[in-house]
Amino acid sequence: MHRTKVKVVEDALDANNTIARANRADFDRAGVRVVNLMSAPGAGKTALLERVVADLPGVRVGVLEGDVQGSLDADRLAALHVPVAQLNTDPGFGGECHLDANMVRSALPELPLGEIDLLVVENVGNLVCPAEFKVGENVRVMVSAITEGEEKPLKYPLMFRACELVLINKMDLLPHLDFDLERFLYNLDAVHPAVDRMVVSAKTGEGIERWREWLARVGRASEPLGAPA
Amino acid sequence: MHRTKVKVVEDALDANNTIARANRADFDRAGVRVVNLMSAPGAGKTALLERVVADLPGVRVGVLEGDVQGSLDADRLAALHVPVAQLNTDPGFGGECHLDANMVRSALPELPLGEIDLLVVENVGNLVCPAEFKVGENVRVMVSAITEGEEKPLKYPLMFRACELVLINKMDLLPHLDFDLERFLYNLDAVHPAVDRMVVSAKTGEGIERWREWLARVGRASEPLGAPA
Repeated sequence: MHRTKVKVVEDALDANNTIARANRADFDRAGVRVVNLMSAPGAGKTALLERVVADLPGVRVGVLEGDVQGSLDADRLAALHVPVAQLNTDPGFGGECHLDANMVRSALPELPLGEIDLLVVENVGNLVCPAEFKVGENVRVMVSAITEGEEKPLKYPLMFRACELVLINKMDLLPHLDFDLERFLYNLDAVHPAVDRMVVSAKTGEGIERWREWLARVGRASEPLGAPA
Repeated sequence: MHRTKVKVVEDALDANNTIARANRADFDRAGVRVVNLMSAPGAGKTALLERVVADLPGVRVGVLEGDVQGSLDADRLAALHVPVAQLNTDPGFGGECHLDANMVRSALPELPLGEIDLLVVENVGNLVCPAEFKVGENVRVMVSAITEGEEKPLKYPLMFRACELVLINKMDLLPHLDFDLERFLYNLDAVHPAVDRMVVSAKTGEGIERWREWLARVGRASEPLGAPA
């Protein structure tokens, strides 16, 4: 029984990877770079996008918003005059906890791929399954808010391992928390040594210029990238 | 194709419900009440348990800790001399994002059911799937940290609907956040009108006595409960 279960799951991930590669081929043909943006609920993904998407030097950006239900985040970003498409995962099964490659594929006709250089896919807030399902991205960025505690890399290692950049957000709250940044970085290095990391605050603007430059560099197709499948 | 997928998932949930009922029957026979405790990562489930489990008047408590990996939270609770069993969800598939009834069933032999009145199952940190999988509990409690924002009930409605109590945690940070408590409560009432709710701070102790009394009342088998299956 146990063996059967594992086999089914591997097949599901195989199918996902097949579709992710097809998405990636379409993005490549259109000259669009893709970022998969992930975090726990409320870590500040949308706020960190609001800070930068309207002004990425030389890069036209679009956003694909993933939510279980509603379009609150998409509305916030559309207000910045950036093309935004909404994916809701609630049809069937009370809400999927992640985006998968097929959901993103179903949204491709809604995306003006010919008019953008960079697509940011804002995943469902969750530290587990989004890391297991590629959607066709070039790079993965995760946001970890310091309000979530220092031990999160140890408790959700796959998420912290599966990304190219960790944004350590809500640094404005540091004086009010029992949070030891050195300890967090130690835990991060234990699961993903030397991964790029930036301390930022979407509220005060701390670190936002570095984040803007990082994202703009990904969006410039002339610049090389180490790339997940 | 779509129909086939939905069918499989419904079967999976049916099987889960069957096992959840078997767990519940075993808990009832042992005279143990069960709480399923859920939240996003880092909302403070363990901290809120640390505050109360060693001193629940007239109630002997045990804890079943669910984590993708590691035993950091179980270690914190075991330090309070409370019986704790650890369930890790990482074998197979890179880590399940929730506990299900069968995982809890597999842990039953590790739990001293004859020596406790109340079992708290601390679920994996996630606002989506834990709400979809009953484990045999009498009641469900969820923790929403105010650092996560006011709109969480609208974005993760099933979780906020599936519980009997919402603990609104990290109230100590209110002066430092753009968080409108009235707005959060308005959103909560939009998805689950009149659900029990308490504003608390695991850090300062605000609201902790009410939480302690609520949990102790659940643990006293003589007191009646409205109960999910």
